[in-house]
Amino acid sequence: MSLLVTGSIGIDTVETPTGGVHDALGGSSVYFAYAASFFTPVRLVGVVGDDCPEGFLKPLEDNPRIDLTGLEVRAGSKTFRWHGRYFDDVNERETVSVQLNVLDEAGAKIPAAFRDSRYVFLANTHPRRQLEMLDQLSRPKLVVADTMDIWIKSEREALEALFAKIDGLVLNDSEARLLTGKRNLIAAGLEIARSVRHYVVIKKGEHGGILFAEGRPYPFLGYPVAEVVDPTGAGDTFAGAMMGCLAAAESLDVPALRRAIAYGAVTASIELEDFSLGRLIASSRGDIEARMTRFRELAAF
Amino acid sequence: MSLLVTGSIGIDTVETPTGGVHDALGGSSVYFAYAASFFTPVRLVGVVGDDCPEGFLKPLEDNPRIDLTGLEVRAGSKTFRWHGRYFDDVNERETVSVQLNVLDEAGAKIPAAFRDSRYVFLANTHPRRQLEMLDQLSRPKLVVADTMDIWIKSEREALEALFAKIDGLVLNDSEARLLTGKRNLIAAGLEIARSVRHYVVIKKGEHGGILFAEGRPYPFLGYPVAEVVDPTGAGDTFAGAMMGCLAAAESLDVPALRRAIAYGAVTASIELEDFSLGRLIASSRGDIEARMTRFRELAAF
Repeated sequence: MSLLVTGSIGIDTVETPTGGVHDALGGSSVYFAYAASFFTPVRLVGVVGDDCPEGFLKPLEDNPRIDLTGLEVRAGSKTFRWHGRYFDDVNERETVSVQLNVLDEAGAKIPAAFRDSRYVFLANTHPRRQLEMLDQLSRPKLVVADTMDIWIKSEREALEALFAKIDGLVLNDSEARLLTGKRNLIAAGLEIARSVRHYVVIKKGEHGGILFAEGRPYPFLGYPVAEVVDPTGAGDTFAGAMMGCLAAAESLDVPALRRAIAYGAVTASIELEDFSLGRLIASSRGDIEARMTRFRELAAF
Repeated sequence: MSLLVTGSIGIDTVETPTGGVHDALGGSSVYFAYAASFFTPVRLVGVVGDDCPEGFLKPLEDNPRIDLTGLEVRAGSKTFRWHGRYFDDVNERETVSVQLNVLDEAGAKIPAAFRDSRYVFLANTHPRRQLEMLDQLSRPKLVVADTMDIWIKSEREALEALFAKIDGLVLNDSEARLLTGKRNLIAAGLEIARSVRHYVVIKKGEHGGILFAEGRPYPFLGYPVAEVVDPTGAGDTFAGAMMGCLAAAESLDVPALRRAIAYGAVTASIELEDFSLGRLIASSRGDIEARMTRFRELAAF
């Protein structure tokens, strides 16, 4: 069924202890859409400026499963830019510079042809903007949102208004603790799950995470990766594969959610083996299935 | 098959943010033996002083599956004492005081009747003492050791001599990083696994851990616990259930190891719901099996 994502499209510069990439294609909706496209067609809604280098968006344009009708190239505006640096511990990073540019202007419009989208992912941005996006949709079946610490700290009211209208929420462990004041993640997740309609996923990076659904915690593993090249986009890749998998399936029950989450973990483990979309572009659905089979073998007990 | 554990027996005082316990039965071999006894008979080798309060060892004496032939009550000596305090984040603790007492004297002797033990767990102590214990055994089938940061820092040579003689090693994530200088746990574990004969388990507390066997990483989950009362002994409980399970089974292949580890995670999750041996004493093998069934349901994908 139809899957729509709204989020950032960025020009990323990334430094890691062993390498880096300059002015590469990035942004939450880009990683999400590419990952989701392995499972289902996906509609991307986002805005760039007219400053993107020649061929910058080619990986998206070349992917027949990504519908770019909702991609606006805004004349006179500049594209979102992010420059990050990872430390020896790739779980830690610092933002060297960030230029919001077009993300600080009016939001993207959802094209008329996309308003009937049934599965929707609202990638991280101001919760008021996420609510605006939601209001443009006619009859979504499953709406999942991402968020981050700055909104939890400064926009609690808007965030709670958003929670009341969404089915699922994806956030990381430190954000879950910040949101609830609870140190124990099981207790924190159970509390957050009561404020949304369907489910919550707390991500713990390499440690996997915990799904909270039907009032219960379901822990899940990360796929083991011996050498992480660049973790940028892993969270959005996880969400993209998860939502793509759910949109392709006919069920939202706990086994379907758990299977979708496992596909998310596997696809993210592939993504972080190279910079930008490098490994995703070089991979096939068959590569994901092979790793999924291996994952089931590794995890069985 | 016969399972032997050597390790500490202690008089513990524990403080947590919500409660505490004073002069309670603790120590690595105590938690290990009690947890293992759910799966197989277990032989305990350790030393206490003659200062134990009346009835102090009753939970061990009352357990018909724990053979105390190797328990020495040393006249004129004092029992090992530990006083710890946990913070709001129960993953962090400080040692308020520690009195090695009898642990700083000559080690325990393994009784003649125990020397044929096939499964052996060398709980954490100086690696030279672990080697001495190993030398008293005639034909062990599976020897697994625990260790800790102080030996990694100061007794590297003895530790490597120990590694060459053991089949399995259990350690936590920070110890694995310290031992290898590698930040990535998959890379660290694969390196450590090459120095022992059979397998390595890296524990990550609430996040579960990773088994390394046959040159591959097998991640495993922790059982989700919403309220940790006292984490003291959880690591030894994990090891006890794991080794008890292996001693009861006829196999050491990867599926058998993974099943034993899952029982370890489940039994540890029960143990930390109360102080000292409280919850273990109140539990049956049936309680463990019920939680194991639930664990399999939670973890399936």
